Parts: sequence; structure tokens; C-alpha cells
Amino acid sequence: MLKPSVQSLPIKKFKDYDLQNTDDLLTVEEPMEIRLSFGTNGSRKQKSISVTMRTPGHDFELALGFLFTEAVVYDKNEILSIRYCEKEQGKPNDQNLVLVELHETVIPDVEKLERNFYTTSSCGVCGKASIDAIRTVLPISNAIGDTDFHVSFKDILSLPKKLQEKQLVFNHTGGLHAAALFDQDGNIILMREDVGRHNAVDKLIGASLQLDQIPLHTKLLFLSGRSSFELVQKAAMAGIKIIASVGAPSSLAVSLAKEFGITLIGFVRDNRFNVYCGQKRIKE
Amino acid sequence: MLKPSVQSLPIKKFKDYDLQNTDDLLTVEEPMEIRLSFGTNGSRKQKSISVTMRTPGHDFELALGFLFTEAVVYDKNEILSIRYCEKEQGKPNDQNLVLVELHETVIPDVEKLERNFYTTSSCGVCGKASIDAIRTVLPISNAIGDTDFHVSFKDILSLPKKLQEKQLVFNHTGGLHAAALFDQDGNIILMREDVGRHNAVDKLIGASLQLDQIPLHTKLLFLSGRSSFELVQKAAMAGIKIIASVGAPSSLAVSLAKEFGITLIGFVRDNRFNVYCGQKRIKE
Repeated sequence: MLKPSVQSLPIKKFKDYDLQNTDDLLTVEEPMEIRLSFGTNGSRKQKSISVTMRTPGHDFELALGFLFTEAVVYDKNEILSIRYCEKEQGKPNDQNLVLVELHETVIPDVEKLERNFYTTSSCGVCGKASIDAIRTVLPISNAIGDTDFHVSFKDILSLPKKLQEKQLVFNHTGGLHAAALFDQDGNIILMREDVGRHNAVDKLIGASLQLDQIPLHTKLLFLSGRSSFELVQKAAMAGIKIIASVGAPSSLAVSLAKEFGITLIGFVRDNRFNVYCGQKRIKE
Repeated sequence: MLKPSVQSLPIKKFKDYDLQNTDDLLTVEEPMEIRLSFGTNGSRKQKSISVTMRTPGHDFELALGFLFTEAVVYDKNEILSIRYCEKEQGKPNDQNLVLVELHETVIPDVEKLERNFYTTSSCGVCGKASIDAIRTVLPISNAIGDTDFHVSFKDILSLPKKLQEKQLVFNHTGGLHAAALFDQDGNIILMREDVGRHNAVDKLIGASLQLDQIPLHTKLLFLSGRSSFELVQKAAMAGIKIIASVGAPSSLAVSLAKEFGITLIGFVRDNRFNVYCGQKRIKE
């Protein structure tokens, strides 16, 4: 049985100036380890490359999306299998450990995996170094390929309501970040949720990779929270050209979006929004 | 000159069914690397141990708080100095690189620094393993030392307004997480903000360590967002016994708070709140 993504707990609710017994649904948060298996038959190696606190559900998409957006794999065909690891023979598999087996021919840059993704200069880091690091790993087909994909005022204003209708779990627990893809006609086509906003985006991109839909040049990415550098970086890796969010973007998120020709929209709520860059993709 | 924490940018605002030019204040987000210098004189070594995306400001507190809550240092006296690193002789220091010099006598567990904090079991991880890992590193004085510190209904209900009054930067950009300490009388005594919520808590705990105020047994920690496992873990390291947040806690945040006898309060907004554990510290 798969792990649940929500859990009911007895709590006390403040009501009528008293603490009253009730039950509440909480978002489940558990660590998930991603382990790579690689090398030629006979000398296969395993390496743990990440532990993330996530909400169980769509775990294989999360692993795939993480490996793709962190530029460890570039194509789903590099992967032989993704599965939960057996803790001991005959025992149930451990759903907090995902083993990704690479094809014999794929040699991951193990040293790179040990370095932090952003650390590139020999002494110190800056926003520019971070953007340079992404430029070097961004798949060419995702960086280029500008299309005439655009979005209308009306479609932008309708994003929060459409996400809310879809976000049933959020309505229950109030503890999940959501990321969703919208098509040219303003329809929501895929949504993922997680206690970590980067995980929600990784799950979405992992699912798109499984469906052979990358690069996502003609999809809009909508985020329930804020736009950070990391989220724009992940979107850029997947070829997304329009990002909109309910919350504010950071300064570095705007710099990165500008650098990669991405349209960045923020504060989409209460019938308003701001455009930070890439206005050309917004039509009346 | 220190780096700014907010930045003004020209943007387009949707108004009267048109996009109008205006300026907007954005939260600055930049990577900060923490590097340790340790060993005996003559054979000092440097090791980069973390790169975090943060909002500039209180950088040394952030470094100190991170090292303390990740159990790399246990006391501020283990540290000789904290400073920005010089990129090249004669050039200005790089404010995105913080060098922490440990005393000769302090030998950090370098191997542990290379492992992920949560990865403890040989195959896979679970919530229980994560909690076990924290139990082994939690300073004894912070784990025990229960006091009769408590909080009233009235003081809980007043937290959001007091934080909002203090959170001037948030009001400007809408892009910062806040963490604040409140005393027995319901007064806000220290607040820190950051684009990353874990950084806001690290800055707060780093500042408290500099002021010799740890363990924080008689302070309440209030968070502008949600309570995750990681935030409860950091609070536990600093001896905090009451945590309240505007948003929801995760399942693992509640498990960890229960394990360490911490009172966990959530959804503190609109004159309501929920108590997830540790009701004994809440008085009418």
C-alpha cells in the first residue's frame, strides 16, 4: 500500500474561548532519499545523491524531475528503471528510498553531484555565477525554441480560481504548495502538490518527462506561492516560457527569467497581477 | 557598503485593463556560501559546508545559527571569528562568502558535514530515523530544562498583529518569511526576515547565541508561514518550548514536537488557532 499524503490527528481547536477536541487533517511530510545505480554490469555502483523532505505521492516523478532539473540526466531513455528499494530480502520495500537505475552507457558526473549545484567560482558565489552555472547545463532545445505562445489578460486573471478548484488536498489541510501547467486555451492540464514547493515543480516536470512533453514551450507554469531563483531555474530546464505565481518573485528570479527570455508574472490574485519581464507574450 | 535586502525594479502593473509602468520593491535573493576554517596553526584547512539562497543582511548571524542548529558547533566560544572572505588581496570582500574560523582545539566532524543531515540508516530513511538523528545531536541542556513558561489565549491571538507591525520589509515586498521571539509578557523581542524560512530561523537563533540567550526556554517562536520538520528541529536545538505559526504544521513537525515536549500551535490568524501538542503550556 502506498503511503498516504494526508493524515488525521486529534487536536485542540480554540473556540468560544476554550480549547475543544476535534480531528484535523495534516499534510504528511517524510524524507525521501534518491539513490543512483550506475556503471557497467559486474561493477555497478550505488550513490545517494539527495534527501528531500516531501509529501508522499508521485515519488518516481519527483525522482525523475529532480534528476532532470539538476542536469544529472537529460533524457528519460537514460534511465533503466525507477523503484522503491528493498530494505531486506522478503521485507516490504522502503517507500522513502527511491532507486534510479541508469543505463550502462550513462556515466553521471559523480564529482559534480557531490558539489553543491550553485558553487562554481573558487572563492564565493554571486547571483551571476549561479546564472552562469545554469547556462552551462541548460539543454539547447529548451533554451531556444521561442514560440508565439502567449497568454491573455483574462486567462491570467482566471489562474487562481482554476488552481483552487483543482487543489482539493490544499483545501483540506492548508499545508501544500501547488504547481500546475496550463495550455494555450487557459485549461489546467496537470497539477502536483507537495509540502516543498521545489518538489511540486519537480513532480510536475518529472510527469511531463514521462509523457514525452518536454520541452514545455507551449505551457504556462502557475505556482501557488512565490517565485524563487530555484523554481525559475527548474522551469528553464524544462523549456517553460511563461511563469505566473500567486506570490512575489525574488530579485534573482527576475534576473534569471530575463536572462533566459522567460515571461515572469507575480501577485496573480484579487483580479490583479504584475509583469516583471517578457511582456511580449501577454496579449490583451 | 553592505548589500541591500530589497531592490527597486521597473515593472508593469495590470490596471484599468492595461499594463502600466511603475516601480516595485523586490526582495533580494542571493546565494551565500559558508566556509569553515579549522585545524592547528600551520595546517589550517578550509571546507565549504553550505550554499543557501538568502536575503542579504545579518549574514554572520545566519552562519552562526546554521552551524549551531546543524550541530557543527555547540557554543559560540568555539568560534574565533566570522567575516566575509577576500576574493583577491586588495579587492573588496565578497559578501556572498562567509568564512567561519574555528578555534584550534575544535575539530569539526568533516565526514558528517559531507553526509546529509537526515541520512542515518544504511538503506532508506524514515521520519523515525530523522527524529533519532536529532535526538543524538540535541544539546542535553536544551532537550531538558522544562520550565513553567506558558502563554495565554490572549497573547496567542495577538501574535499576528504584533509581527505585522514589526515586519516593515514584508509590507513593502510581500516576499519575506519572518521568524520572531516573544517573551513571557507577549512582547516581541527579536525578529528576522529572509526569502528562505529556514534562514529567518537561523538568523534568529544565531543572534540569540551572540547575545548568550540560548537555551531559549522562556521564549515563544512565532513563524509567518508553516511549521515544517526542519523548523521544529532548529527550534529544538535552541531549547525553544513553544512554537506558533500562521500556517499549518506538517505531520512530521507534530511528531518531532511531541517527541521533544514542545508545544506546537498552528493557524494563528483571524482570531483562531489550533493546538497540535503540549497543551499544558497554554493558559486561559
